[in-house]
Amino acid sequence: MKGANTSIVIFSLLALASTFASASDPSSLQDFCVALNSTKNAAAVFVNGKFCKDPKLVTANDFFFSGLDKAGNTSNAVGSRVTPVNVDQISGLNTLGISLVRIDYAPYGGLNPPHTHPRATEVLVVTKGKLYVGFVTSNPDNRLFTKVLKTGDVFVFPVGLIHFQFNIGKTNAVAFASLSSQNPGVITIANAVFGSNSPINPDVLAKAFKLDKKLVEYLQTQF
Amino acid sequence: MKGANTSIVIFSLLALASTFASASDPSSLQDFCVALNSTKNAAAVFVNGKFCKDPKLVTANDFFFSGLDKAGNTSNAVGSRVTPVNVDQISGLNTLGISLVRIDYAPYGGLNPPHTHPRATEVLVVTKGKLYVGFVTSNPDNRLFTKVLKTGDVFVFPVGLIHFQFNIGKTNAVAFASLSSQNPGVITIANAVFGSNSPINPDVLAKAFKLDKKLVEYLQTQF
Amino acid sequence: MKGANTSIVIFSLLALASTFASASDPSSLQDFCVALNSTKNAAAVFVNGKFCKDPKLVTANDFFFSGLDKAGNTSNAVGSRVTPVNVDQISGLNTLGISLVRIDYAPYGGLNPPHTHPRATEVLVVTKGKLYVGFVTSNPDNRLFTKVLKTGDVFVFPVGLIHFQFNIGKTNAVAFASLSSQNPGVITIANAVFGSNSPINPDVLAKAFKLDKKLVEYLQTQF
Amino acid sequence: MKGANTSIVIFSLLALASTFASASDPSSLQDFCVALNSTKNAAAVFVNGKFCKDPKLVTANDFFFSGLDKAGNTSNAVGSRVTPVNVDQISGLNTLGISLVRIDYAPYGGLNPPHTHPRATEVLVVTKGKLYVGFVTSNPDNRLFTKVLKTGDVFVFPVGLIHFQFNIGKTNAVAFASLSSQNPGVITIANAVFGSNSPINPDVLAKAFKLDKKLVEYLQTQF
Amino acid sequence: MKGANTSIVIFSLLALASTFASASDPSSLQDFCVALNSTKNAAAVFVNGKFCKDPKLVTANDFFFSGLDKAGNTSNAVGSRVTPVNVDQISGLNTLGISLVRIDYAPYGGLNPPHTHPRATEVLVVTKGKLYVGFVTSNPDNRLFTKVLKTGDVFVFPVGLIHFQFNIGKTNAVAFASLSSQNPGVITIANAVFGSNSPINPDVLAKAFKLDKKLVEYLQTQF
Amino acid sequence: MKGANTSIVIFSLLALASTFASASDPSSLQDFCVALNSTKNAAAVFVNGKFCKDPKLVTANDFFFSGLDKAGNTSNAVGSRVTPVNVDQISGLNTLGISLVRIDYAPYGGLNPPHTHPRATEVLVVTKGKLYVGFVTSNPDNRLFTKVLKTGDVFVFPVGLIHFQFNIGKTNAVAFASLSSQNPGVITIANAVFGSNSPINPDVLAKAFKLDKKLVEYLQTQF
Repeated sequence: MKGANTSIVIFSLLALASTFASASDPSSLQDFCVALNSTKNAAAVFVNGKFCKDPKLVTANDFFFSGLDKAGNTSNAVGSRVTPVNVDQISGLNTLGISLVRIDYAPYGGLNPPHTHPRATEVLVVTKGKLYVGFVTSNPDNRLFTKVLKTGDVFVFPVGLIHFQFNIGKTNAVAFASLSSQNPGVITIANAVFGSNSPINPDVLAKAFKLDKKLVEYLQTQF
Repeated sequence: MKGANTSIVIFSLLALASTFASASDPSSLQDFCVALNSTKNAAAVFVNGKFCKDPKLVTANDFFFSGLDKAGNTSNAVGSRVTPVNVDQISGLNTLGISLVRIDYAPYGGLNPPHTHPRATEVLVVTKGKLYVGFVTSNPDNRLFTKVLKTGDVFVFPVGLIHFQFNIGKTNAVAFASLSSQNPGVITIANAVFGSNSPINPDVLAKAFKLDKKLVEYLQTQF
Repeated sequence: MKGANTSIVIFSLLALASTFASASDPSSLQDFCVALNSTKNAAAVFVNGKFCKDPKLVTANDFFFSGLDKAGNTSNAVGSRVTPVNVDQISGLNTLGISLVRIDYAPYGGLNPPHTHPRATEVLVVTKGKLYVGFVTSNPDNRLFTKVLKTGDVFVFPVGLIHFQFNIGKTNAVAFASLSSQNPGVITIANAVFGSNSPINPDVLAKAFKLDKKLVEYLQTQF
Repeated sequence: MKGANTSIVIFSLLALASTFASASDPSSLQDFCVALNSTKNAAAVFVNGKFCKDPKLVTANDFFFSGLDKAGNTSNAVGSRVTPVNVDQISGLNTLGISLVRIDYAPYGGLNPPHTHPRATEVLVVTKGKLYVGFVTSNPDNRLFTKVLKTGDVFVFPVGLIHFQFNIGKTNAVAFASLSSQNPGVITIANAVFGSNSPINPDVLAKAFKLDKKLVEYLQTQF
Repeated sequence: MKGANTSIVIFSLLALASTFASASDPSSLQDFCVALNSTKNAAAVFVNGKFCKDPKLVTANDFFFSGLDKAGNTSNAVGSRVTPVNVDQISGLNTLGISLVRIDYAPYGGLNPPHTHPRATEVLVVTKGKLYVGFVTSNPDNRLFTKVLKTGDVFVFPVGLIHFQFNIGKTNAVAFASLSSQNPGVITIANAVFGSNSPINPDVLAKAFKLDKKLVEYLQTQF
Repeated sequence: MKGANTSIVIFSLLALASTFASASDPSSLQDFCVALNSTKNAAAVFVNGKFCKDPKLVTANDFFFSGLDKAGNTSNAVGSRVTPVNVDQISGLNTLGISLVRIDYAPYGGLNPPHTHPRATEVLVVTKGKLYVGFVTSNPDNRLFTKVLKTGDVFVFPVGLIHFQFNIGKTNAVAFASLSSQNPGVITIANAVFGSNSPINPDVLAKAFKLDKKLVEYLQTQF
């Protein structure tokens, strides 16, 4: 009976390991803490960040990702594609405070629209094309810092500030961007404001954006 | 048999979710990490802070608390009452580094006695009445910073320092105080020193406080 | 000659003390570090946060602010007024990681429009009136968490997320909000996007917000 | 004239370097940031922590302290002596988050009286003698954790909690204690409460400690 | 049936408690978070740091360690022995950011070889003997800071820098060292470089260390 | 006379601004804190990190760097070249916790030799060529995690661990690496150990590396 109990326990622990979302941290407290993948969502215990894999079972593949040489598909409304490599793609990034993305931009107007990363500063390096980029400071100044970037140029978007990149060249453009968090988060302004699920009371948005309420309601159907 | 095992596992995981105390963190690593309530104490696995609820199951009520318009009962030895709103009352505060309290003070001498918050600075705003407040700096200076506050006045008590508020007005007084932690902790000096469980050796307290040992032993029966 | 030099030095150091903006920090490294006020801007050396006042010169008034009993003037386009009490109002808050605000809302529609605090979570308590409040999570879900609050109700807006409060009552409304930073920052979305200084290229905003370019250009004149 | 100006400038900068108190930080941002000694206090600009010495001028002596083999003088009211080695003794500890002390205890009752370190956990190792030690947890439990330590024993006092050590042996005792901050701070409870400068209103202390007001006033003359 | 289910659950939770490795954190979020010991490795869920014991079950022994009065055995290739007292020896150190070690050195050449602590600064106090100690700064300067220490001398080794101690006296030597992490980690340079498991490609080491490839391969058999 | 004094003061403050090295921080406390460049070293006051430029004077160029499209010169002993873009190249990175580098590797054996970053995790993406890369864990396991990377592959080197990259392809190779600090630091193991300035006592290195003392002394002339 004791043996039977033991096997139930072990099984439930393995289930725990493979079912939970996993745990990271702002400061690493061991060599690494490779995130456990959340493969099921029937049961749900989480921690701030992610749970970690048994270090004895960790392999080099937990620190590896392949495919950033492939262009992202930019056939969409904004003409850009972000390919992320954060803790969801490389579980070994858990607790380590960094991630990266590849961004592809369609020619003549591919746009990575105004957004913020609530938990990360971004450093972007252009490897192809010509981008008009910028960020806006907080109240009361709301200063726009903007620059046209060419291949080999680097630009910084400080944490939490609204920023964008816009392809003003005739060819597609490519950039790699580093972010100072394993889980930086993205808030695309237009989507969060006009496309929230469920919609924000349109009176709020009409007053805030000085738009006609009908237009707000129309925009809310578009995002 | 495998089916039966699976159902046991799922049950145990749900039990895990509802039984554990939950997990916060000094720096939020996702939009939020709503604390799981600890409803049983038979089993016990904890983390630094609190475990979190499945984000899919989180609702607006996890960020909500009601009742701070109600006066606390000040019919007690010190004539004051602290109504806390921290991670134990609003589970959505988990990992977010802030909480608040309402404090009610009886007329003519309601006292929030000398205490420290080991993990928080406090900012207090008086909404009714007249309070004599103060804090004392660390060694070697032990400077007292003190002020009489009226309605609309604000005062800061830096993290870890001993502080107090004392109602010197003829009416009851009310204040709201913000604390820079979701779990600030409170050490009421007199209670920790003379009312610890079990009691500190009275020779220690007699020597430290320059009190007669008999008086120390008497005080130890009072807290 | 040496005496003359000495007096010049002392004068320049005092000037330094009264001219610089001052320095805070995420973790306090002494009892307190009261910010020096920046009274001139001819010369400019800054640090992350604020420089501090000589602790020997610090008094209780450095931790004190008066006037939160007074209603803010809501006669403006959005019908609300935020009265801040952060490190710019109470220099003693420097390095201590907390601040607060009083918010007044005009009857029937006073709005604290959608905004983010890049460096703080907010906990709001309503002391008068009836507010419809909400926040939106990050991509990809953009979930809206919303609630109607009455006197004595408390709500949490997690750090970095877009949130708002809207007076849906017939009377004016008042709230106190605590923020988990001595310098939380505010980014009012509409102002940062449409009112930046200088303006963002309207092609960017037209594409991002699915608005006609003419309308974007019109909005840019309104903020 | 320009040359004259230049020499004034250089002189004032050197004065700056030798006059200011210096700057540390919770997380080191370079190999080291050796604190500048504050040798004068006529002028006063400070930062959170300490300003640093030019790294080019740093030598091994900035990381060195001599004399912990010498017993501290315990001929005082409590019969103990703390010899600190923190950022004030080793300027190289600045920003590095650690310090240590030697503590000597007189035979039969040498006491390191109840105190807190607002910014540090303490780990103590006894190198001679026999100590009764303890700490008390925060509200509401105020649990006392206590132990008798002999040579070679180690005990932990968690950050912010009230703790003490008491020599219950017939010989003098010696301990070394490590603290998790370069500037841990010390609040000796009895001194801060009854010996503050100026005194706390005795009505506050009489009510808080359940002592007669006359006794409080007497104690206030003793600390 | 429900009763039976409950007992299974409780059993699995206790198993969880005794099987997992446990969880600490860079900043303590409660009075303490005593680490759970990892006694089995069949199942494996970890967090950044360690899971914690039920606070109700914590006793003074969780903060206690005995035996640092005993000399470590230095009969080994380098002639030194480090006796650690970190979170693996005192589970109460979990989340508290500090630990210590006793180091014994054989006479005439006992060596604590060049190593780094990736997560801690070290402060060392010599209690017996005479040590030649040093650390090297990062690129491009690689400056050596070195000192001969005698009984009662203290020296600091900043976080992450390569450092060593070498007994240059005729007697054995003893030191106590404090480290600014509950889990500081140790990377002994020679072992990590030449003794990794599996071996680094010898072409890499031959080129990096300007050694003959045969010698590298020989060294790789020695560590 | 007062006017004359004022002009001296202003001059000395400007000198301060242009002479000091500047100050960053682990957590940004304002939108940005652009580092001041240290252009002179006659006078020397530093802080942890860098002093900041007056925000009013900040421009987009403070967040900009140009030239990462240019190959680094790999004609050197190890056949590799690191082109850094950290706070020394982009002053706007100050306080923001991220930086990047371009690394060029000569064909057939270009080596970025074993090194650590004491303050950063590294994420590397290969944009050309074929690299054998690896890192080694801390004691006692010293496990080697290794992988062969091709164009588009990404690999993570956790903070503080010894790691390397080696070009095993027939062409030159190029990688971009992100680091989780604005000032990550680099310790090239062979240089710090055998090339320190001044040299480490060769007896220490002979014993630590199991090398003949003559060979150690020879190596010390080579680095």
